[in-house]
Amino acid sequence: MANIKDIAKMAGVSVTTVSRVLNNHPYVSEEKREAVRSAMVECNYQPNLNAVHLSKGETLLIGVVTPFINHPYFGQLLEGIANEAVKNNYKLVLFQTNYEEEREVEALQMLQFKQIDALIICSRICGMDIIEEFVAYGPIVLCEDARGKNVSSIFIDQYQTFSKALMYLHNKGHQRIGYSIFRKSGTNSKLREKAYKEFLREMNEPFNPEYIFYDCLKFEDGVHVVERLLKMSSPPTALVVTSDIVAAGILTFCKEKEIQIPEDLAIMGFDNQPIAKIMHITTLEIPLVEIGRKLFLQAIDNSEPSHEEVFVKLIERETV
Amino acid sequence: MANIKDIAKMAGVSVTTVSRVLNNHPYVSEEKREAVRSAMVECNYQPNLNAVHLSKGETLLIGVVTPFINHPYFGQLLEGIANEAVKNNYKLVLFQTNYEEEREVEALQMLQFKQIDALIICSRICGMDIIEEFVAYGPIVLCEDARGKNVSSIFIDQYQTFSKALMYLHNKGHQRIGYSIFRKSGTNSKLREKAYKEFLREMNEPFNPEYIFYDCLKFEDGVHVVERLLKMSSPPTALVVTSDIVAAGILTFCKEKEIQIPEDLAIMGFDNQPIAKIMHITTLEIPLVEIGRKLFLQAIDNSEPSHEEVFVKLIERETV
Repeated sequence: MANIKDIAKMAGVSVTTVSRVLNNHPYVSEEKREAVRSAMVECNYQPNLNAVHLSKGETLLIGVVTPFINHPYFGQLLEGIANEAVKNNYKLVLFQTNYEEEREVEALQMLQFKQIDALIICSRICGMDIIEEFVAYGPIVLCEDARGKNVSSIFIDQYQTFSKALMYLHNKGHQRIGYSIFRKSGTNSKLREKAYKEFLREMNEPFNPEYIFYDCLKFEDGVHVVERLLKMSSPPTALVVTSDIVAAGILTFCKEKEIQIPEDLAIMGFDNQPIAKIMHITTLEIPLVEIGRKLFLQAIDNSEPSHEEVFVKLIERETV
Repeated sequence: MANIKDIAKMAGVSVTTVSRVLNNHPYVSEEKREAVRSAMVECNYQPNLNAVHLSKGETLLIGVVTPFINHPYFGQLLEGIANEAVKNNYKLVLFQTNYEEEREVEALQMLQFKQIDALIICSRICGMDIIEEFVAYGPIVLCEDARGKNVSSIFIDQYQTFSKALMYLHNKGHQRIGYSIFRKSGTNSKLREKAYKEFLREMNEPFNPEYIFYDCLKFEDGVHVVERLLKMSSPPTALVVTSDIVAAGILTFCKEKEIQIPEDLAIMGFDNQPIAKIMHITTLEIPLVEIGRKLFLQAIDNSEPSHEEVFVKLIERETV
């Protein structure tokens, strides 16, 4: 298919001139305008839909709120969102919030002032009360279970997924099971804590707050987990690690400290990132690229808020 | 410091109302407006600079062109760009091009139509002639050596860096040295090919086109490299792999095929990504997050185009 550069070449004008003709810019001579039009007809050029959409008062910009950009979890979500945006001729406005509430409100305000058509929130810091104040201005899509709320959502059942991971470790003979996570608060963190405590109750195991490891986001955070494990008189024999990259870090530092995996410590990762495959980490596959795609499609769908659950899959490898 | 939510709480109004007051929206009662203003004075609230900038006709949006989002190389560049954008109160408009020329032209057009204040191109597909047609509309910053061109650039000396890697392998006793790369064309690819051929000439070694492996972008691409190596009667004994993630893939598949690293094959990575540390890959450290930061700062600097070289560092580990 001919592109804008081919048209420019055929018409003997610059790309800028073609772009001006496409956008009905006034400063183009009638002669050049005609040459561009002839070239377009000759090679059956299909101009993109921007012009059409702009006339409808749409920006063709979708906002994406993400706490971090360069993290495998959010990277895969963004990949799915971006791939679908390209297909549908939208651009993304990226809001890296570092989980600062004010940044998230800025994103919501851009929706309010029609600077973006819709907003995807990959992970939020603002309360639902604040977010719901902005739903009148355009579609908002969350990546968490928001059934019953006035926004759309694509989600996995965090409670069930976490329970499943714990039960898998239990069935492998583990009694002292701990877990690592990034945030103490946050919807998903709370659901996981609830699943954990419920699991312990059912198994008649005591709750040991030492067995929960917070602030685990990156590879390096695995070091601190292992350091703490080494100081415990009765460390957990299995860990649910809610990020493969952290699991990879724990695995690497365990090797250095001669802790045998899975004999001394079983590790169950989360997400099934490429690193989990490389390092043979048993993990729960969460189809993040696919979730990203669905988040985008819901953002450009102007019908009523809807909710879709995505299912996870256990991938058995060598760390449990 | 108080944020917009604190103000809302103090004034007994919604966040939306605070936002409306900040943006001089007409539909706010005088009573509420006054309550918000009092709360702001009371806690010495500093409104952000958006309003000031908008009045100057700026969008506070910076465009970022990247072929892919979820790739470690571009992920780190984006991380640096995004961190600096947050600090300076800018948002990013992301253009994932998949190296399609038309997508890149769309980004240039957004600069032309003042929908963004500046454009950062992490890696381009368009010729410099096309890009230079758009410099009149706003700052354009490239991540390649663009000295002598009418755009700004932050770059590493690809020719010198590649020569350095080849010479290091040569000094370790290797004669049959190959390399892997993503694109056949592209400025950086051409400079690397030039450095390679020049090196061979100086060393009096024959040029063997089989020793160059194209289309190497992801971990999985390492499989194809190893499969091709296994079929060669006289394979290279050392490879410069211009991406750590590909080097990790080669390393992993070599282990499966019982090719000893570095005895049978020496591997020199590029970038010093976290994976290079995990897998003990000898590599050239390219400070991508820092380069991202500099790209952003150059984009918002409205002075004359400028150029800055960033230096690389050899990290010796266990694969050479």
